[in-house]
Amino acid sequence: MKKLPDINEWSNAIIGGDIAYLSRGITLVESTLSEHQQLAEQLLELCLPHAGKSIRIGITGVPGVGKSSFIEKFGVYLADTLQKKVAVLAIDPTSSKSKGSILGDKTRMEQLAIHPRAFIRPSAAGESLGGVARKTRESIYLCEAAGYEIILVETVGVGQSETMVHGMVDFFLLLMLSGAGDELQGIKRGIMEMADALIITKADGENKLKAKTAATEYKRALHLLPAHEAGWIPETSICSSLTGEGIDEVWNIIDKYFRHTNLNGYFEAKRKQQAIFWMNETIHNGVMEWFKQLPDLNNKLEEITKQVQEGKITSYAAAKHLLKQLPV
Amino acid sequence: MKKLPDINEWSNAIIGGDIAYLSRGITLVESTLSEHQQLAEQLLELCLPHAGKSIRIGITGVPGVGKSSFIEKFGVYLADTLQKKVAVLAIDPTSSKSKGSILGDKTRMEQLAIHPRAFIRPSAAGESLGGVARKTRESIYLCEAAGYEIILVETVGVGQSETMVHGMVDFFLLLMLSGAGDELQGIKRGIMEMADALIITKADGENKLKAKTAATEYKRALHLLPAHEAGWIPETSICSSLTGEGIDEVWNIIDKYFRHTNLNGYFEAKRKQQAIFWMNETIHNGVMEWFKQLPDLNNKLEEITKQVQEGKITSYAAAKHLLKQLPV
Repeated sequence: MKKLPDINEWSNAIIGGDIAYLSRGITLVESTLSEHQQLAEQLLELCLPHAGKSIRIGITGVPGVGKSSFIEKFGVYLADTLQKKVAVLAIDPTSSKSKGSILGDKTRMEQLAIHPRAFIRPSAAGESLGGVARKTRESIYLCEAAGYEIILVETVGVGQSETMVHGMVDFFLLLMLSGAGDELQGIKRGIMEMADALIITKADGENKLKAKTAATEYKRALHLLPAHEAGWIPETSICSSLTGEGIDEVWNIIDKYFRHTNLNGYFEAKRKQQAIFWMNETIHNGVMEWFKQLPDLNNKLEEITKQVQEGKITSYAAAKHLLKQLPV
Repeated sequence: MKKLPDINEWSNAIIGGDIAYLSRGITLVESTLSEHQQLAEQLLELCLPHAGKSIRIGITGVPGVGKSSFIEKFGVYLADTLQKKVAVLAIDPTSSKSKGSILGDKTRMEQLAIHPRAFIRPSAAGESLGGVARKTRESIYLCEAAGYEIILVETVGVGQSETMVHGMVDFFLLLMLSGAGDELQGIKRGIMEMADALIITKADGENKLKAKTAATEYKRALHLLPAHEAGWIPETSICSSLTGEGIDEVWNIIDKYFRHTNLNGYFEAKRKQQAIFWMNETIHNGVMEWFKQLPDLNNKLEEITKQVQEGKITSYAAAKHLLKQLPV
């Protein structure tokens, strides 16, 4: 990193919408150097009062569902037709190649990448889930401070990233294919019930009829699932990133959700809940990390885990034994 | 509690199937006295080698779905027709009246309560989730050591008890009514995707046709949900606790699941995973309890939670601040 700017200058530039400073701010947030982390905290504190005024949308779906093409088309629609400032972030705890996904994201989003009202930030290199979550949430704040009105958070990896993204967005979009059941292969149980909307992609040409049928079936299925805390029944729709058909409808659904949850106070309540959730998560992780560094703890843990697996002692006796290591 | 028996005598009596000793063993496990807890640990250690050889079935559903009537009919079918030894436990972290639910359970299960091959243990008095989970899991071990082949764990309270029971059973049964969508009111999101089978109750008289229609709809819906880790597609069926129709089919589904997951190794793998899960849960709870008792921690936590809610600092900065309290 070049010589770092003054922190007040830096935050003012971000708040003024300067993309270069925003990018460097995210790089700072992503840095693992402790002096950078301290600086990042100061930067965030200055930016926070200007953050929060966006709609945060999580986008997930199995590989091959066309997430990038959808985001390209949807992003251009938001930035162009609706004149919104759009930021795209990706979350990928499994990836170990940062450079690879930079190129990947940008070339797959050709139009959006050069749009003056859009900002695309490729995913950070893979590391711990907690670390990725922190960086993404803090990047969201910086983008919001820079005036981005809609933040799209794409899940790239499989595994736990969906749950993580669900915990940091206002609206969770699940993209699906219209195959005959095969489309579910890569989706974990529980994800369907997290979705606020379910969009069948690639609804064009010969595929369109199949997509419509699938949408109708999912609509019925979603009605049978328990209702949302906010009284929202997840909606189903179809779209094509090729023709652009149905892209506006996706926005209409999100906008409807936004108005609905704004009115009943759920929108704000959920954000506060999420902030507290992440605070507690971070405390838990920190305390447990500390605990596991107590002398000999890891050996004892390994040993006792084996005994539990072999059914020699109960889970509780094992835990109690380890907890004896805590200072009094 | 009367004078306690010798621990070897006690465990031998349980392993021999003595119901009085089993009952007292569960009471010991439920006791909060630390001398009882130590004794309970010894008792469990002696019983554990004889535990594990049952099918553990979790049963949940909204109030009014007829859980107790179902368990009565299903339990008698297992004990009588199939000649199985059946234990019924209930989990109710919300209840504060232990005596009330004793009477409730036993009078609602008249035939099962007096059946020589059945053992019904009412839920322990309400307290912390972690405590209730420990007691229930340890009671399962004791019942298994006493030769019970099928353990039914009923969720009584609403709230988190479904997730808890799901984490300690082999098979998770969701009972539902055939209302027009209203039946979902009390079911939390996520529960549907946990279910290994979905049974529509009260399928008798005029209700039967409605139940059949509902079952068909749910069957379709469940096929649209992501498949189970074990490659099991949740099944749907109907039954009546009044006429007994369909009760055998519920068992057939469970038996099929048991054979399926035994063959592919999932059954054993899941049990080991659950044991490790509960060990880790208990460690987490213990460590966090210890952390929160550090000097002034609770005041600081309250103060900083407010700042996070008001958007003054990030979740991470808040957590980091609190983690400074850890001893070095």
